[in-house]
Amino acid sequence: MTKKIYLAGPEVFLSNAREMLDRKAALAREAGFIPLSPGDLAIPPAATKLEHGCNINAIDEQMMLEADGVIANLTPFRGIAADTGTTYELGFMCALGKHVFAYTNVADNHFTRIMNHYHGIAAPDDEGRYRGPDGLSVENFDMADNLMLHGGVLRRGGSFIVGDAKPDEIYTDLSAFKECLKVAAEKLL
Amino acid sequence: MTKKIYLAGPEVFLSNAREMLDRKAALAREAGFIPLSPGDLAIPPAATKLEHGCNINAIDEQMMLEADGVIANLTPFRGIAADTGTTYELGFMCALGKHVFAYTNVADNHFTRIMNHYHGIAAPDDEGRYRGPDGLSVENFDMADNLMLHGGVLRRGGSFIVGDAKPDEIYTDLSAFKECLKVAAEKLL
Repeated sequence: MTKKIYLAGPEVFLSNAREMLDRKAALAREAGFIPLSPGDLAIPPAATKLEHGCNINAIDEQMMLEADGVIANLTPFRGIAADTGTTYELGFMCALGKHVFAYTNVADNHFTRIMNHYHGIAAPDDEGRYRGPDGLSVENFDMADNLMLHGGVLRRGGSFIVGDAKPDEIYTDLSAFKECLKVAAEKLL
Repeated sequence: MTKKIYLAGPEVFLSNAREMLDRKAALAREAGFIPLSPGDLAIPPAATKLEHGCNINAIDEQMMLEADGVIANLTPFRGIAADTGTTYELGFMCALGKHVFAYTNVADNHFTRIMNHYHGIAAPDDEGRYRGPDGLSVENFDMADNLMLHGGVLRRGGSFIVGDAKPDEIYTDLSAFKECLKVAAEKLL
């Protein structure tokens, strides 16, 4: 029984976006899925940049509605947390009751990345909660990103694969993605 | 007719979290809503940090299911983009067809913030798309954050309010939130 899987992630921003999207789609087909990816479909013309952005949102949401599940690439993007477009999409799919899988190519968890962001300068407050010098609390849940993401995946019986790519390959290494595909295929196909 | 509104945002991480959540809840009540906020309910005890995180996810998702709409605070958080927990929640509410409203307290749009992140060193590629020195494309849609967020709100007839708080008040200034509440009350109540 063929299932459609939506491939969410920041690949669309890469200089080799088309190549990476194609490689992921090919791997998804090999695993037995019909892949749906941002960038697959032509975007209707629009008069303004704002409308153009809305048209892309519409296309991507339509693909998510059609998909049976999502594999979300939550590798930290331009900072310490995942790409916000991808996290929106993960929440979208969780709300729809679709099958959800996620991975990251960075082994350091959310707590460690935030501590590094603060150069280690964070200490427990009166309630034992770590806080940075700016007063913001440091999430400490043994999770790969914000608890809504990691918790949302786990609570639905999905898997969150944590890879460990080389620093210059965090957007191109596909080993964690392949592992995600394997788990997804075992569950859905 | 009373409506429930979920107040999503990074306030839970602030050193004065309870005070900020209470202030927002009080303003929502004044506007005629029943406010639902992360942090409102006791979290069931758990044996591990991971399970504790999952329990918080469960409580927050339950509140979203009960709510008629969301006001999402998408002010950039520890970097150039919104808090990933909040963006998950916005996607969740969009998928459910709830009323969605968002605001940010930073006037610079997504394009400008990314350009600043690259210290202005980004130039158009062969297709006219701006790219940073790391090759990543710079989203350029006149939007406040990733197009899935801003587009998802606009396409549903929601409003995205852009405030302009002082740098040291971006997490505490409530003027954009108040404007969001006003728009939401006009639409829902």
